[in-house]
Amino acid sequence: MPPAHPFDFDAVRDTDDEDKLREECGVFGVIGVTDAANFVALGLHALQHRGQEAGGIVSHDPDQGFNSARRFGYVRDNFTRQSLMETLPGALSIGHVRYSTAGGKNPVIRDVQPFFGEFAMGGAAIAHNGNITNANALRRELIERGSIFQSNSDTECIIHLMARSLQRTIPERMEDALRRVEGAFSIVAMTRTKLIGVRDPLGVRPLVLGQVGDGWVLSSETCALDIIGAQFVREIEPGEMVVINESGVESFRPFRPRPSRFCIFEHVYFSRPDSIIGGRSVYETRRQIGVELAKESPVEADLVCPVPDSGTPAAIGFSQESGIPYAMGIIRNQYMGRTFIEPTEQIRNMGVRLKLNVNRALIQGKRVILVDDSVVRGTTSRKIKEMILDAGAAEVHFRIASPPTAWPCFYGVDTPNREKLLAATMSEDEMREHLAVDSLKFISLDGLYRAVGEAKGRDTGCPQYCDACFSGDYPVEPSDQVEKGFQLKAAE
Amino acid sequence: MPPAHPFDFDAVRDTDDEDKLREECGVFGVIGVTDAANFVALGLHALQHRGQEAGGIVSHDPDQGFNSARRFGYVRDNFTRQSLMETLPGALSIGHVRYSTAGGKNPVIRDVQPFFGEFAMGGAAIAHNGNITNANALRRELIERGSIFQSNSDTECIIHLMARSLQRTIPERMEDALRRVEGAFSIVAMTRTKLIGVRDPLGVRPLVLGQVGDGWVLSSETCALDIIGAQFVREIEPGEMVVINESGVESFRPFRPRPSRFCIFEHVYFSRPDSIIGGRSVYETRRQIGVELAKESPVEADLVCPVPDSGTPAAIGFSQESGIPYAMGIIRNQYMGRTFIEPTEQIRNMGVRLKLNVNRALIQGKRVILVDDSVVRGTTSRKIKEMILDAGAAEVHFRIASPPTAWPCFYGVDTPNREKLLAATMSEDEMREHLAVDSLKFISLDGLYRAVGEAKGRDTGCPQYCDACFSGDYPVEPSDQVEKGFQLKAAE
Amino acid sequence: MPPAHPFDFDAVRDTDDEDKLREECGVFGVIGVTDAANFVALGLHALQHRGQEAGGIVSHDPDQGFNSARRFGYVRDNFTRQSLMETLPGALSIGHVRYSTAGGKNPVIRDVQPFFGEFAMGGAAIAHNGNITNANALRRELIERGSIFQSNSDTECIIHLMARSLQRTIPERMEDALRRVEGAFSIVAMTRTKLIGVRDPLGVRPLVLGQVGDGWVLSSETCALDIIGAQFVREIEPGEMVVINESGVESFRPFRPRPSRFCIFEHVYFSRPDSIIGGRSVYETRRQIGVELAKESPVEADLVCPVPDSGTPAAIGFSQESGIPYAMGIIRNQYMGRTFIEPTEQIRNMGVRLKLNVNRALIQGKRVILVDDSVVRGTTSRKIKEMILDAGAAEVHFRIASPPTAWPCFYGVDTPNREKLLAATMSEDEMREHLAVDSLKFISLDGLYRAVGEAKGRDTGCPQYCDACFSGDYPVEPSDQVEKGFQLKAAE
Amino acid sequence: MPPAHPFDFDAVRDTDDEDKLREECGVFGVIGVTDAANFVALGLHALQHRGQEAGGIVSHDPDQGFNSARRFGYVRDNFTRQSLMETLPGALSIGHVRYSTAGGKNPVIRDVQPFFGEFAMGGAAIAHNGNITNANALRRELIERGSIFQSNSDTECIIHLMARSLQRTIPERMEDALRRVEGAFSIVAMTRTKLIGVRDPLGVRPLVLGQVGDGWVLSSETCALDIIGAQFVREIEPGEMVVINESGVESFRPFRPRPSRFCIFEHVYFSRPDSIIGGRSVYETRRQIGVELAKESPVEADLVCPVPDSGTPAAIGFSQESGIPYAMGIIRNQYMGRTFIEPTEQIRNMGVRLKLNVNRALIQGKRVILVDDSVVRGTTSRKIKEMILDAGAAEVHFRIASPPTAWPCFYGVDTPNREKLLAATMSEDEMREHLAVDSLKFISLDGLYRAVGEAKGRDTGCPQYCDACFSGDYPVEPSDQVEKGFQLKAAE
Repeated sequence: MPPAHPFDFDAVRDTDDEDKLREECGVFGVIGVTDAANFVALGLHALQHRGQEAGGIVSHDPDQGFNSARRFGYVRDNFTRQSLMETLPGALSIGHVRYSTAGGKNPVIRDVQPFFGEFAMGGAAIAHNGNITNANALRRELIERGSIFQSNSDTECIIHLMARSLQRTIPERMEDALRRVEGAFSIVAMTRTKLIGVRDPLGVRPLVLGQVGDGWVLSSETCALDIIGAQFVREIEPGEMVVINESGVESFRPFRPRPSRFCIFEHVYFSRPDSIIGGRSVYETRRQIGVELAKESPVEADLVCPVPDSGTPAAIGFSQESGIPYAMGIIRNQYMGRTFIEPTEQIRNMGVRLKLNVNRALIQGKRVILVDDSVVRGTTSRKIKEMILDAGAAEVHFRIASPPTAWPCFYGVDTPNREKLLAATMSEDEMREHLAVDSLKFISLDGLYRAVGEAKGRDTGCPQYCDACFSGDYPVEPSDQVEKGFQLKAAE
Repeated sequence: MPPAHPFDFDAVRDTDDEDKLREECGVFGVIGVTDAANFVALGLHALQHRGQEAGGIVSHDPDQGFNSARRFGYVRDNFTRQSLMETLPGALSIGHVRYSTAGGKNPVIRDVQPFFGEFAMGGAAIAHNGNITNANALRRELIERGSIFQSNSDTECIIHLMARSLQRTIPERMEDALRRVEGAFSIVAMTRTKLIGVRDPLGVRPLVLGQVGDGWVLSSETCALDIIGAQFVREIEPGEMVVINESGVESFRPFRPRPSRFCIFEHVYFSRPDSIIGGRSVYETRRQIGVELAKESPVEADLVCPVPDSGTPAAIGFSQESGIPYAMGIIRNQYMGRTFIEPTEQIRNMGVRLKLNVNRALIQGKRVILVDDSVVRGTTSRKIKEMILDAGAAEVHFRIASPPTAWPCFYGVDTPNREKLLAATMSEDEMREHLAVDSLKFISLDGLYRAVGEAKGRDTGCPQYCDACFSGDYPVEPSDQVEKGFQLKAAE
Repeated sequence: MPPAHPFDFDAVRDTDDEDKLREECGVFGVIGVTDAANFVALGLHALQHRGQEAGGIVSHDPDQGFNSARRFGYVRDNFTRQSLMETLPGALSIGHVRYSTAGGKNPVIRDVQPFFGEFAMGGAAIAHNGNITNANALRRELIERGSIFQSNSDTECIIHLMARSLQRTIPERMEDALRRVEGAFSIVAMTRTKLIGVRDPLGVRPLVLGQVGDGWVLSSETCALDIIGAQFVREIEPGEMVVINESGVESFRPFRPRPSRFCIFEHVYFSRPDSIIGGRSVYETRRQIGVELAKESPVEADLVCPVPDSGTPAAIGFSQESGIPYAMGIIRNQYMGRTFIEPTEQIRNMGVRLKLNVNRALIQGKRVILVDDSVVRGTTSRKIKEMILDAGAAEVHFRIASPPTAWPCFYGVDTPNREKLLAATMSEDEMREHLAVDSLKFISLDGLYRAVGEAKGRDTGCPQYCDACFSGDYPVEPSDQVEKGFQLKAAE
Repeated sequence: MPPAHPFDFDAVRDTDDEDKLREECGVFGVIGVTDAANFVALGLHALQHRGQEAGGIVSHDPDQGFNSARRFGYVRDNFTRQSLMETLPGALSIGHVRYSTAGGKNPVIRDVQPFFGEFAMGGAAIAHNGNITNANALRRELIERGSIFQSNSDTECIIHLMARSLQRTIPERMEDALRRVEGAFSIVAMTRTKLIGVRDPLGVRPLVLGQVGDGWVLSSETCALDIIGAQFVREIEPGEMVVINESGVESFRPFRPRPSRFCIFEHVYFSRPDSIIGGRSVYETRRQIGVELAKESPVEADLVCPVPDSGTPAAIGFSQESGIPYAMGIIRNQYMGRTFIEPTEQIRNMGVRLKLNVNRALIQGKRVILVDDSVVRGTTSRKIKEMILDAGAAEVHFRIASPPTAWPCFYGVDTPNREKLLAATMSEDEMREHLAVDSLKFISLDGLYRAVGEAKGRDTGCPQYCDACFSGDYPVEPSDQVEKGFQLKAAE
């Protein structure tokens, strides 16, 4: 086995210990507009929730060739500066925000996308949302053949596969490469003249097409079209590749067709509430989850309070269905965000209190329903429960807008090891006891499917979504993980 | 007239153009706990909404004397670092966050509080929330007598008055000084052994007393007691001075008593919704403002949407009173915050769109009630209205949780010149036309008084609150301003 | 006694442990040229050897008033940036570089000059080279009267004395203030329209007048006139004050006349070798010291090597007088300079080796004469001797271009406490033994006087120079020090 | 042709326009000592003159694998910090300082060495001093075969050639790769267990072996052995590869033997005067050049002055041979160094004056001989001549310690294009006229050979040195350059 890649220790460290699953990436690209990189910066800012650690932009201009800038930190702190943006000229540009890659734990700028490859027929840049489940095997094979990897990222395999392809154009080489790749990928790429978008055959991660003036846009979510005033055209379809230049959009189908399996957690948590997926408002779907939850697991109480901010739409729905008043029982400090500096011991131990405070006057003596989007390790839920009780609540009832998260995701989401997932080791009842709350209810998988519009629920032949984190039903075998000893459900 | 004070051009510049009144300061102090400065850091973090530009902490330790650190930027970015906090030892500490002083427009570290003065009997540090309305006259007089000012801040007058007082103890000198001062002040100060709190006779700005273990706390708001687990004891009363040391809290009344006039805008906008003022939950008061507003100015519509985040509690109240469903029609980008860097022209012009996006799928074809806390210049309201209409709303109705803001505040709030206030130059009808919305209604002054618990409304002899920004009724004459030509209402 | 002033712990720390006396300040001012601050930046760069820790510039422009910038670090790293210099407009500007003040050990920006004071008749800025020997007493008196000090610097006393003066113009107030001040001062100051220069009656520190185009320049040394292409006019005389405006230079004599006592160490070490003092080239004087030293203390040897860089001119003179070849036996690493960052333990322990390396091939087997400018603590001399012996030298002879430094300087030079001075506790013979060298000889005080042009040596009535660091003969009583217990020579 | 590689615009830019040839790199490695990276940091600090732009260190520790840190700026500003050095554990480490690569003009961290490659049998890091003259052709070939380049550096070819080698060990793969490479290379490399050193068959660049305790050191120059207290063992021979592990040093001869051609300019300028090359003191060689120059081109004059600092040893030699007194007529400001910030126009135009000042009192009325190491573009010489005349010199005679530089170097030195070299377009007489000096003489090529110990001069069959920059006699054809149109001398 090759040694771990050496890394720079940079100043940046994630001390934010949110007890959430985290989407790992957002991608955005635009062609046919002046100063395209400025549009990409705005698009990435709108997609910042998909990756807060770092961002990168590549642009191309016929005179100045390819240019690239990759930075740690928020888009708004880097890619709004005139001096930086002037180094990214041209009418064609792509960008990427990321939380963390499949690679090492210490963030290094080398791992920040877009990645660039110089091929015999010209350069190409690539930005990837998702995760390649056979990356380790591919990397080993490529190193044996003499490829030099520069990052710890699974995405780099695609560049090396393209470099070794026998095809003559970059789009053809990309098709060739992606046919060797397993897992989830929504890709935005560019050559000197073309913007390219691809989604894996299952369509696990989102990718949409928009139009702005005479130009075209590719984006992870529709909310990033809004910010630049672009019109939504359509979603890129699972298994589709689009190649866009000044004459328009060409569509290809490089892969063998399969029934699609879009990530249902994009509806629950990852996507922004003002985005539209599959023609449905994400906000409305989440509100509807609250409605379903109120139907499935009603409880007598005085207040419905969201765990801010992600529990808010479901709490509104729960309140509307149940008739129990909606209230902001927990206030989120707006001045948090990701902290890059090492706090003092004393301050670190304050934990959740720095971010959240209970509205004591409101809560005291009340029976409170707390609506949250999910329970991962359970550590945050526990602290919130304690805050609510400290404030004098009479009863605390948790209602969770997703089924128990019992399996890790291998398709581009940062999840703890299975043994760290509360639901992997406890039943719903054990969890209730562990959290010491008056009641704890998760929406059922069927209820969730109903909320996203599948009236008959999940088990109608092949499910329409990837729900592996709840069901353990992995639509693509996570082969690198199995090699490392991960036990599939069937094997249990 | 003395020349303007020279200033360093620092890198920091406020490019955030929020169309809001802004509280200028928050103060916090603690005595009798180990590593008091850490508590102050936490308290200031909870008070960050009262001043985002800069913060400072002074501590005292018998061995190491006074230590001080003042920084631009958020508390969480400066005062959580172990290396900095270790330079602030001791069991006695005070701190300050500020938005901007009465002084120059270019922020300089010299203007950041707490201020420190070395007197013949020892040093003292002082942190001030409010504004001294005769500061210019005092400054002139003090310079004539040979004082050297080091800042542009009105607060520095207090230090120089104390330096020249004939009294023998620091608390006595502070009394002496404050009797020369007009305007609004809630002060937290410290000597080598004492923590001191004072509120002006009108009690315009808040100040509360808490207890944590064996120690005592002074804070602008109760939410900052919660973050350190302190118990609320009572409010410092208007005109009261408390001097706290290890033997306990002594209370003094240095000023001639006057009927109190607490700032009513603290209820509407400045204070955090999880704070408690005068025994009332700020959140609940705001929700009640929404209830009153729905009673006063009902309208048929499909949705009640808050302008995030400050309009949220009133929107909830409006929805509950009117029965019209509450919905998050506008989504706020959580990754904004104050930007310290100069963005590109293109990005700057995107303005509000960077922060807010409309939930298009929700809004389309709907009659929408937008609930906001106030209208200042009207520029933001106008942009929001356009976003909502672009998204296809059928009707747009504005409901404002405060009366028209027609007069500037001179008591510690950053307000534009009178001619920039929309309500100073237009009637409600003209404003509706100017904003081009289907209806625009402000809560009445009486309605606002009812919401804060004055069942009979405002005009019951002397009003219980300072509402000068709505009424032009200034409880203390703003003499510096009058000298500069400001026209009082009586003079109109 | 008032408590020590609180301070910010800034990132800057002096880890440079050079075993040298260090001049504490350089001053520079210019009037009557466009963008005067740029000239000041260049002048301060040429005076950087007089103070490497921090620098400041104040300028005045009729439209924009006074502006100021003060920074830690080298002039070239701060005051050459277009963006900073644009904030310092106007045809009148003064500046200051400093090593460290009489105040605290932790550098704070508050202590960096020029200082600014706002008086009833307008503002003034002041930059001071020297040290006020009764500053503590003055400070105590001023605080008793109600002055608030903002720095730890002795110089601030002058501002407060001026603020309390009964005179009507700023120059008159400055005269008034300086008559209360004891010690050494060469001052460059400015009002809105005037450039002012003053030297104390003894003329301990240098100050020269130059002309550039239609403008006038004041500078600590002539080398800073050269850098801006200014012509040397004359030295400001001891006890003289010049007030310069567009109509020219007026000269005043505010002090009772006294025989002058210029610092002889300026010739030995402080001033730059390309400066001219009293009509004599500093380089030539130092070469002449080498000649005198060779006459006084000859020795048979193979090579004369300077301890770089300050020993170079005397070594050249020694070689020329003795006929022993001059050689660069010790090489100085050009990439040192002041290090602001905390090095690893291992690296810190390498000490002198990081800066100096012996030219082994040259030294091996040779009898080496090392010429250095002075011996302070002796720590560096010891390390250098060891390096030379390690490299295989047959004999090591030290020749020192100044008499034994046995007394601290209180007139603006950073010296260790008396007990740390090697020559305060050891005879020349004991020092030779302590350093374990084959011979050690210092130039005699008379020899030094001869080298600076006093053919008859020192003791010709009143000595023409301040040589207190060698003789203990302090021309002004260091009263603050005596109060703290310092033993004058007479008292021994 | 592949497109130019995209680059990050970093803040760093070289505004230093010294009119000098510049060595491009220094290399250093150590095995068998605790915290090896600290030793590498010290070694690189001593080699800083060989590359001031950036530096990098890789270390290996059995537990933590490979670690790497690469930074812009001086070694002392980055690689002395405890926090950074702690990230580089282990007993095996190599490092590199560089001026600029063969690649783009905008420095990017990607181009900073050491480079790391992950091969099937483990990782390796490589640091290279020199230049590969067939890098473009190799790069093209490797890209055709599917390699992805991550930098603009010629050195990266070596890594890719190694990745594709069929050999089984890393040292064997390195041999394999280097046999495809043309040009100059002194390489220090490391695997998990071995330190490797190689010199090209001509031995153009230096590389020496040393011993420290039980450990071994490889370094570009001996001065870097001194700083860590290591003993010089021997030079690595031209065409030799050494592989060092705990059992000792093994030596290999992978290349066909050729007569060696060491760079003669290392003696003239590149190496530090305290280094020893081929058993000769560099300082002594330079002094000897001055002696030869005085013999070849004597002139009557009053003073011999070096152009500081590189002309100093030759000036000393010239003075000693001619009997004309040596003097520091030009003073160098010690506070310069490379400036990374953009100065104001006014300051930029001061040019050389910021760095150098004439010792006016010394120069006035004198006939001055200026000794400099070389003339490249002639711009600096011209400015210096003007400064000297402005100061009132009666005559100015230039004596240059190298022959006319008429040809660019392609073996690891940054030289201007041929048409920018003054000596490429002018005869010695034309140059004298162009510089407008009283006389201008260069040492002859034979004189230079005599000074380095070749008593018979250059043309004794095959010359012992590479002197292509003077003679146009390139020992390895610069094939990439010829392809781009460079005219060899034979072709003229």
